Amino acid sequence: MPKSMASKRKTPARGKVRARPIRKPQPMFNNVAIIGMGLIGGSIALDGRRLGVFGKIHAAGRTMENLKKAKRMKLADQITQDPVEAVKGKDLVIIGTPVKSIASIMKKIAPALEEGVIVTDVGSVKEPIMDDAERYLPEGVKFVGGHPIAGSEKRGAASSIKGLFKGKAVIVTPDENTDKAALRKVKAMWRKLGSKVFQMDAQHHDFVLAAVSHLPHVTAYSMVLAVLGLEGTSEFIKYAGASFKDVTRVAASPSEIWRDICELNSDNIIKMIDLYEDKLGTIKKLIINGKFDELAARFDTAQSARLRH
Amino acid sequence: MPKSMASKRKTPARGKVRARPIRKPQPMFNNVAIIGMGLIGGSIALDGRRLGVFGKIHAAGRTMENLKKAKRMKLADQITQDPVEAVKGKDLVIIGTPVKSIASIMKKIAPALEEGVIVTDVGSVKEPIMDDAERYLPEGVKFVGGHPIAGSEKRGAASSIKGLFKGKAVIVTPDENTDKAALRKVKAMWRKLGSKVFQMDAQHHDFVLAAVSHLPHVTAYSMVLAVLGLEGTSEFIKYAGASFKDVTRVAASPSEIWRDICELNSDNIIKMIDLYEDKLGTIKKLIINGKFDELAARFDTAQSARLRH
Repeated sequence: MPKSMASKRKTPARGKVRARPIRKPQPMFNNVAIIGMGLIGGSIALDGRRLGVFGKIHAAGRTMENLKKAKRMKLADQITQDPVEAVKGKDLVIIGTPVKSIASIMKKIAPALEEGVIVTDVGSVKEPIMDDAERYLPEGVKFVGGHPIAGSEKRGAASSIKGLFKGKAVIVTPDENTDKAALRKVKAMWRKLGSKVFQMDAQHHDFVLAAVSHLPHVTAYSMVLAVLGLEGTSEFIKYAGASFKDVTRVAASPSEIWRDICELNSDNIIKMIDLYEDKLGTIKKLIINGKFDELAARFDTAQSARLRH
Repeated sequence: MPKSMASKRKTPARGKVRARPIRKPQPMFNNVAIIGMGLIGGSIALDGRRLGVFGKIHAAGRTMENLKKAKRMKLADQITQDPVEAVKGKDLVIIGTPVKSIASIMKKIAPALEEGVIVTDVGSVKEPIMDDAERYLPEGVKFVGGHPIAGSEKRGAASSIKGLFKGKAVIVTPDENTDKAALRKVKAMWRKLGSKVFQMDAQHHDFVLAAVSHLPHVTAYSMVLAVLGLEGTSEFIKYAGASFKDVTRVAASPSEIWRDICELNSDNIIKMIDLYEDKLGTIKKLIINGKFDELAARFDTAQSARLRH
């Protein structure tokens, strides 16, 4: 018998402290409902369970096919197409559906939410969602608006990614009505998933995101339409290097998600498109007028700014 | 002694054909000059030598520091700051300098080029270069315009990448004056480096590249200027997800290279900016007018086009 095995079988010596039985750490939330089992909802389930943040997960979604997939992937213990059923008896409800459906989900689940439950979301636009929560969620339900800046152009539970939120920014957007303890818990949850948590008001969030996310999506769609929408240009992609592919990658994102974001954050997005059109227009004018040294100076400014970060 | 080793040591049986001594395959070009030891020139040297396409390499460049680095990295056997010295007695001259300097390099090396030498380039704009070759290179020198669609925002010999051209498109742009045998050899060279070689006229090349490369660079610079040029926006990059980073990655490209491309291909680039502004303008109008279903339809068209490729 190898020595190591022998020693393991030894009974503890009298008078010595017994090794404590290894106990599974208590999950931060015992009973969690995740409404919407897409890439984000699925990845939260995956890591929330893997990292011991969640106990049982009850997943709600639109299609049984996707929910069954989520269950097979062990992203959920229970599945349902009825969000009202999902939220009963939970201590945390995560709304992970497309941003425009969050209001109607809130309305629907409101009567079934119990006193003290924490509700959070992952929507890309926050001001209207904060308003909707105020409007639709009953007293005693603690809403914390959140937005993990992670994801990809993929969709569905099957596209869930282990470690998706690791190192990624998550923005929480409390207002004067937000319960402080609930805010702390939601922030702690995201940190457990490896995220860097930032806090700002919803209005500022929506402007920042219009700049760094919504504008790049709108321009990516526009670029594909401009370049691949010409007569005989379907062959062009053969000659596209990394620049076109990088710049247009997010144009593969689901159109209805971006339709909704454009609707909910239209003022900020229009403001950012204006600003961007102005910069692009200046560059075009410099090219038209042959002012290539001024052009190089602008490119240089952009290059430095891009490299600094 | 294992059987296989024993059989190897056997002297060949009389009357049987002797195994031919393994000979290093003859390089396609014995004496090559590469003018410009940047990312592209360096990577051509690296793989050209590694894959037995080139014999001796004589590199010319602007700074001795970069040339010495190239020599230490074994990208060149000889180095010089004088392109005239580099081209003497060569069977292939590759001009790998920024696109606007190609004309002056041609002018400079013209008197030193020997009858029958093949000259090629890697410039991102082809029509003016084809004209310049016609104008400056002497009779008997065989020019083949070429453009490998590969690279990155990095620069210098130290950024040379093994296999950079593998699977990448290379466009050659012969005209009625191009020597057929030289064209075949240059195409064969690129294929040996793993590239997919396409052939089209220079004018078409310049339009295609304005669409799939020059436009995305111009918009990347514009996006950085719009987003990071606002007051207090330097913090924004913290919240930028993959979309902003992807869309603006090429804004880290050297400004003078893109200044020159904009100068040499200005008409096509202006045409593409116009087209793009038109698509973006339509999208902005749909958002302003609240026509979100039409907007989704446009996004959908773009998404399908992007996913098809």
